[in-house]
Amino acid sequence: MADELRLGIAGLGTVGTGVIKIIEKNPGLLKARCGRSISIKAVSARSRTKPREIDISGYEWENEPAALARRSDIDVYIELIGGERGSAKDSVEAALATGKHVVTANKAMLAAHGQSLAEAAEESGLALRFEAAVAGGIPVVKVLSESMAANRISRVLGVMNGTCNYILTRMESSGLSYDEVFAEASGLGYLEADPTLDVGGIDSGHKLALLASIAFGTRVNFAGMEIEGIDRVSITDIEQARDMGFRIKLLGVASMTDKGLEQRTQPCLVPMDSPLGQLESATNMIVLEGDAAGQVFLRGAGAGEGPTASSVMSDVMELARGQKATTFGQPAKSLANANPVSSNLPAPFYLRMALKDQAGVLAMIASALGDSGVSINRMRQYRHEGEAAPVIMVTHKTSPANIAKAISRIKKSDVVMEEPVSIRIEEI
Amino acid sequence: MADELRLGIAGLGTVGTGVIKIIEKNPGLLKARCGRSISIKAVSARSRTKPREIDISGYEWENEPAALARRSDIDVYIELIGGERGSAKDSVEAALATGKHVVTANKAMLAAHGQSLAEAAEESGLALRFEAAVAGGIPVVKVLSESMAANRISRVLGVMNGTCNYILTRMESSGLSYDEVFAEASGLGYLEADPTLDVGGIDSGHKLALLASIAFGTRVNFAGMEIEGIDRVSITDIEQARDMGFRIKLLGVASMTDKGLEQRTQPCLVPMDSPLGQLESATNMIVLEGDAAGQVFLRGAGAGEGPTASSVMSDVMELARGQKATTFGQPAKSLANANPVSSNLPAPFYLRMALKDQAGVLAMIASALGDSGVSINRMRQYRHEGEAAPVIMVTHKTSPANIAKAISRIKKSDVVMEEPVSIRIEEI
Repeated sequence: MADELRLGIAGLGTVGTGVIKIIEKNPGLLKARCGRSISIKAVSARSRTKPREIDISGYEWENEPAALARRSDIDVYIELIGGERGSAKDSVEAALATGKHVVTANKAMLAAHGQSLAEAAEESGLALRFEAAVAGGIPVVKVLSESMAANRISRVLGVMNGTCNYILTRMESSGLSYDEVFAEASGLGYLEADPTLDVGGIDSGHKLALLASIAFGTRVNFAGMEIEGIDRVSITDIEQARDMGFRIKLLGVASMTDKGLEQRTQPCLVPMDSPLGQLESATNMIVLEGDAAGQVFLRGAGAGEGPTASSVMSDVMELARGQKATTFGQPAKSLANANPVSSNLPAPFYLRMALKDQAGVLAMIASALGDSGVSINRMRQYRHEGEAAPVIMVTHKTSPANIAKAISRIKKSDVVMEEPVSIRIEEI
Repeated sequence: MADELRLGIAGLGTVGTGVIKIIEKNPGLLKARCGRSISIKAVSARSRTKPREIDISGYEWENEPAALARRSDIDVYIELIGGERGSAKDSVEAALATGKHVVTANKAMLAAHGQSLAEAAEESGLALRFEAAVAGGIPVVKVLSESMAANRISRVLGVMNGTCNYILTRMESSGLSYDEVFAEASGLGYLEADPTLDVGGIDSGHKLALLASIAFGTRVNFAGMEIEGIDRVSITDIEQARDMGFRIKLLGVASMTDKGLEQRTQPCLVPMDSPLGQLESATNMIVLEGDAAGQVFLRGAGAGEGPTASSVMSDVMELARGQKATTFGQPAKSLANANPVSSNLPAPFYLRMALKDQAGVLAMIASALGDSGVSINRMRQYRHEGEAAPVIMVTHKTSPANIAKAISRIKKSDVVMEEPVSIRIEEI
């Protein structure tokens, strides 16, 4: 263990730069804490000469990530290229085939190929670790797979995409529409090249699928996830929800039920004064529910150079200390096939309807709800000038299927002037 | 690694009972996650026959914890007896002397003897682990020593004592005095046999001293901690602080400064809408500040059977997985001597004074503050009927020394009718 741990780093964007900065800034600290030096042997990126905040001239260079991964003078290959396939996956496979541990921040690759990559690593006695792939600087992979290891986990949920939370909180604070805030964020450079990964809920879904695997001992099953993005969240619903004491957040929620694994990423209401409701801007929060520990809340920066690099280094230092953990909290071969089921856990719902302003309409709505097994907890009808009377309801706990049945019946009845809106209220 | 990991458990109170329940409830889950079975070989407690929620007749019995610790058929000794010395310490020493790993929840013992015990463990290649000793079910020891290992830590702070947080939030919600709520909590059985450990800040101080050691690579130095309990917190200050947008919390705060290590446990104001300000009842929260990760918030149950047992089991499963971590995040022998300094980091302060209702008094106060380097950010004078005019101020950031100087001068001036109150506003 006295020898230094030698790294090869592929991908020198924000996170790769952050990793190099940490290693160059505090070498003595890292050595004191893991008992050996950590050194960067070689790097690879798209451009060798592009201006960077760091000087990479002291590190050997490889044009091809896979060539870097195969070098015999590295112990750990750090993949920070991104993308589900291509050079990211090729190089990780090359690293594992040639006896290197792998640390990655690549949620898309792991959501698609995590099972086969983890099996390949574990068959060779290697580690494939991904703390940085989920929620940036929040150490949820370690907490879930190690600190909560003695718990039967019932639910994992949280705000796992900073861009969406930024857009939703900005809509609320500015009163602007989704499209206006999206354009503003785009102009400020806050969005990824392909923003649909974020606002479409895909990125959050990838992260949730990885956490669900650890939590429930099941193979990553991204295909079995129900995903709805934030693009249909209206400023009207944000404001009416606030009026009822709620905020709208893009939540990822995975629950193990009697019927199977529920995984969904969708806009939900949460109480304004709850830890999730209080979450502003790009901050992330994960809530882990275990049968012994109860609820554990983790909150921190969900992205950014320092926080994500800190998580990469957490995995690197684990390896430097000689710890070798499985990828998903237990041997990949022992993971069960997930039995994904569509989301039907009961919850209260927020309903918004534009009712025709006529006698008997509200009675009709109430009976459509009642007949479908939906009972109303709170209701408000707002002042209006046009023909449509805006009505907001918060229901008692009921199943999503009951809500769907009620809405279908209400739509057929010809008393609503717009498509009714229903949003789940996630209880925590 | 295929063999089972055999435990000896000493102390069958709340936490010991919780540990046994976890092991009996989910044996398959534990085995799947750590690759081997975990079994309880023998137990020890004050009474063998006392009625318990669990049946211990299947486990071998030892009257003496030290005899349990020395048994050759256990791999890990779990010390849940408590107390700084006595059978807790004797038995831990016996375990280490005879080649057993130790898992403990005993903050008092570690605050006093952590250095020598950790050295003894590490000299013999053994682990001495204590996740459950700090903040119950919150995995702060692992997060600080592993997840944040690449960070230079600047500050560790938080609410680490559930009893104090319960009393303070109950005072606010009920309007009752400290003494009244204390009596109420006592009647409900919420207090320890010796409640001064909690309300006097000692328990929180013990926990903070352990975290500071990991955070700053320094030997545990409980003697160098400044401690003030909650017994002098008045309902008046809780209500006036709320009026200014703050709550009073018993905070433990450790910071590494240019001059040395500041460690203090004291009632502080925090913004009402901050994560710490929102913390209700017996819940705990720790905030870790690192140079790369930024602020990481951990929130969960600070005590109780399940949460604390979950943390004990986190350490046990780490050992079952063949990981062997140092006690304080780096080898105990490499820890530096802490250079404790008295707290003088600048902060805003809350000041409350009962002023004589006479012309010129406020001008006198203002100049005493100004001459001491204290400038006022906000001030309120409240309606009053008696002679004393209640005045609340929130200062701009200043040093505790400046506040002390100003108060000393104000007291000499004969314009205050009661001892002025000053409470630090901790910025997060």
